[in-house]
Amino acid sequence: MDIEQFRKAGYQAIDRICDYYISLRDMPVTSQVEPGYLRKLLPASAPTAGEDFQLIADDYQKFILPGLTHWQHPSFFAYFPAACAFESILGELYASSTTNPGFNWSVSPACTELEAVVMDWIAQILGLDKSFYNTTEVGGGVIQATACDAALVATVAARLRYIREHPQVPMEKLILYITTQTHSLGKKAGLVLGLKVRVLQVTAEDEFALRGETLEVALKEDVDAGLHPFILIATVGTTSSGAVDRLDEIADIVKIYPFLWLHVDAAWAGVALVCPEYREACQLPAINSYTDSFCTNFHKWGLIHFDGSCFWVRHRRYLTDALDVTPEYLRSKHGDAGTAIDYRNWNLNLSRRFRSLKFWFVLRSRGTVGFQKHITDCIKLNDQFAQGIRESDQFSFVAKPFLALTVFRLAPKSLSYLTTPELNALNRIFHARLAARNDIAVTQTELNGVFCVRMAIGAERTVEKDIDRALTVIGEEGKVALMEWKRMQAEVGLCFVP
Amino acid sequence: MDIEQFRKAGYQAIDRICDYYISLRDMPVTSQVEPGYLRKLLPASAPTAGEDFQLIADDYQKFILPGLTHWQHPSFFAYFPAACAFESILGELYASSTTNPGFNWSVSPACTELEAVVMDWIAQILGLDKSFYNTTEVGGGVIQATACDAALVATVAARLRYIREHPQVPMEKLILYITTQTHSLGKKAGLVLGLKVRVLQVTAEDEFALRGETLEVALKEDVDAGLHPFILIATVGTTSSGAVDRLDEIADIVKIYPFLWLHVDAAWAGVALVCPEYREACQLPAINSYTDSFCTNFHKWGLIHFDGSCFWVRHRRYLTDALDVTPEYLRSKHGDAGTAIDYRNWNLNLSRRFRSLKFWFVLRSRGTVGFQKHITDCIKLNDQFAQGIRESDQFSFVAKPFLALTVFRLAPKSLSYLTTPELNALNRIFHARLAARNDIAVTQTELNGVFCVRMAIGAERTVEKDIDRALTVIGEEGKVALMEWKRMQAEVGLCFVP
Repeated sequence: MDIEQFRKAGYQAIDRICDYYISLRDMPVTSQVEPGYLRKLLPASAPTAGEDFQLIADDYQKFILPGLTHWQHPSFFAYFPAACAFESILGELYASSTTNPGFNWSVSPACTELEAVVMDWIAQILGLDKSFYNTTEVGGGVIQATACDAALVATVAARLRYIREHPQVPMEKLILYITTQTHSLGKKAGLVLGLKVRVLQVTAEDEFALRGETLEVALKEDVDAGLHPFILIATVGTTSSGAVDRLDEIADIVKIYPFLWLHVDAAWAGVALVCPEYREACQLPAINSYTDSFCTNFHKWGLIHFDGSCFWVRHRRYLTDALDVTPEYLRSKHGDAGTAIDYRNWNLNLSRRFRSLKFWFVLRSRGTVGFQKHITDCIKLNDQFAQGIRESDQFSFVAKPFLALTVFRLAPKSLSYLTTPELNALNRIFHARLAARNDIAVTQTELNGVFCVRMAIGAERTVEKDIDRALTVIGEEGKVALMEWKRMQAEVGLCFVP
Repeated sequence: MDIEQFRKAGYQAIDRICDYYISLRDMPVTSQVEPGYLRKLLPASAPTAGEDFQLIADDYQKFILPGLTHWQHPSFFAYFPAACAFESILGELYASSTTNPGFNWSVSPACTELEAVVMDWIAQILGLDKSFYNTTEVGGGVIQATACDAALVATVAARLRYIREHPQVPMEKLILYITTQTHSLGKKAGLVLGLKVRVLQVTAEDEFALRGETLEVALKEDVDAGLHPFILIATVGTTSSGAVDRLDEIADIVKIYPFLWLHVDAAWAGVALVCPEYREACQLPAINSYTDSFCTNFHKWGLIHFDGSCFWVRHRRYLTDALDVTPEYLRSKHGDAGTAIDYRNWNLNLSRRFRSLKFWFVLRSRGTVGFQKHITDCIKLNDQFAQGIRESDQFSFVAKPFLALTVFRLAPKSLSYLTTPELNALNRIFHARLAARNDIAVTQTELNGVFCVRMAIGAERTVEKDIDRALTVIGEEGKVALMEWKRMQAEVGLCFVP
């Protein structure tokens, strides 16, 4: 493909992306293909001779697009959002055009420098303490691929800090702390690193947040048993319910156990810190005073398309001491002199994508005010949705709505005598009905034995009428699910339901 | 930014990328900025109000581009290439426009399905054994971000397999084997996982390749000492010299130690397997018969822009057993039924980029023949370069040129009495002179105490005249370096050089 062919195909790609967004609202949200659909459509081997790019571009429309679930669709409320601004797509386009692996400062200075600057900008707009800024040359921020990577890297750094102070402790005695509500990244870090994981319990009464006392009891037990808890992965905005661990209480415990690294995973909720009115609810004061590392994914709610997970540490040397390998072929004048950040020593990989460009584009194009508006607009839409649930006779909250997340279940007031297993069975039918539709996407979850449905708002094109429609669809499916469940109950003669 | 603003900015981006490639040859290869250059140019905070995108796009040209080293430049010969086809940029553009995290089959079936198909296509064109194909449902291929990730994941899978058979072995007794020539990914995997690493020696006489005997002696020593070697990361095409570990010999040893996982890192050289004539030199028969996992980075020499590291395993269940965490909110109909691959259980992260699209675009647009031509063109250019070195009185090879890599040093025939330290000092001057230029990029390395210079060819726009020019520049700098060194020697009176 020569330059003029690229220009033509590039214009067409831009036009087709515009067409995609023009028609997005009218498309199904979820793909309805079956496993194996694509292998049947494609040849078993790569072609021997090259093919015309127009054919390939057309095949993308024909074969790939129908197999995608549209995370930007205004009725996509599943998982957490993957909101993607046009400016972010442009940032990625420019970055990919000069592709370089950015592992050292010297191999492409702008990549490292822009990342360092942008991470400080973001720390500022989120209200993070200055000790996290790159300008301190002590703490600092780095863009990771995902919150999984961030948690893994934090755990590796924490392990180094702990082992330095306790050199005789075998790996088998180290324990990583998470809660039942921690994202799967916690267990995965344990699996990858081969470490023991202790899962702390939380209760519905505490709104699924980790309390200081629970942590304290566990620490005492484990230390008494000769074990060595060395990191707690706490969460601000859990996946299942948006819970915020009580970092204020946890901080008091960390003071007594100073070798316990406190990593705060705010993958979803962290971007809401851009709005000062949510900072207290997100425990910013404790984050700023006590955490060793903090992570939030701008590729979720933050308008940056995947990947772009922002990760800050209070002391960068634990990262670099834990991860630095510098063979001769990676040495450079500036690296040797220590005059520049070499981000390869801040993450698992050597090579790195130029991710900061899309952040720079979005932050400048929107400004802080525009970014705040995106967040508050979504929260208003969630308030609208939660109000609909609150006013309904059919549904109830399973957790308090938080930011742009509502977790609820079908629990008709007229059937208040139903047990949890019965309600769970009913809600599995309800969720299955929603999942079978292709005009709305929500996710199931489970909170301490209660099966429930998550509604997460965040796509940039979602507006009030989409929420009204979601409430209507959910209400209708709730009614049908209830009838279906009653019929099943009657059939098996388990109980008589009027 | 609305759709029409995106169209306008998108067209402009495409045009500016075309302009970039039109003028690339006339640009400096390496950036000449100093550490901190960008922070001085940018405001200390994100703007409060949004800015016009035209201003932002112009600032990219003004502030970012001059800070980039141009890996696509025809005179970029440093590290390994990061060759990037236009079709790959287009693949990334389409993929970023529908951004989705692709962690499950169900969240975007096309992402998983295309990856499974494309990895089989690639396995085929490289001549990999069918047991690595996804269609076997036993082995399979997955796209990782980097060879570091691939090695880390292989090590985690290997550890699981070993521990299952030897459940009483503590982590402290496990050892990961690499050689002095293994890429830094080997040591990094050890650091991250907290595992002992044994670095096996290789010799210049063996062309820096690991021999079976060396492995055998180490295994015997370690096993006798009560240690548990569980994985060897072998290399096809080492970074420093392009060495190919003797997998044929290694295979004989692996037969005696069946719990030693053999991971082959062919990050750079692996793509050359697309040409049948290089398969034997790259030890394909042994790869196909004995390796547990194999990795090659198409984002190096393979025309796919970063990131796109292809990784195959013979038994996928070791990956999925080692890495699967499935909380309720990640459950899906197809995942539960086991009817589809959930790639999140094949790598470290949960969410994943839609990387297969750019592979599909490039493989189809070039065809196997076009891809082979890219590889053989580069090898011919390296033959041309190596011939220039061979015919010169100034330079000598430090390792046998391999594929598109030549490792050499300044070693004037007239000064054949110089010792290694003297030659190293001379070559440090020589390399520093080359590094100070911005019209060519090469990298330093060290091979068993010998300081040398690497010339790696692979940028798509490099042609014969660029190699001629490189030889001229290198010849001139060699002469000046020699004069400089002689002057220094005379000044300190260390020796008299005629």
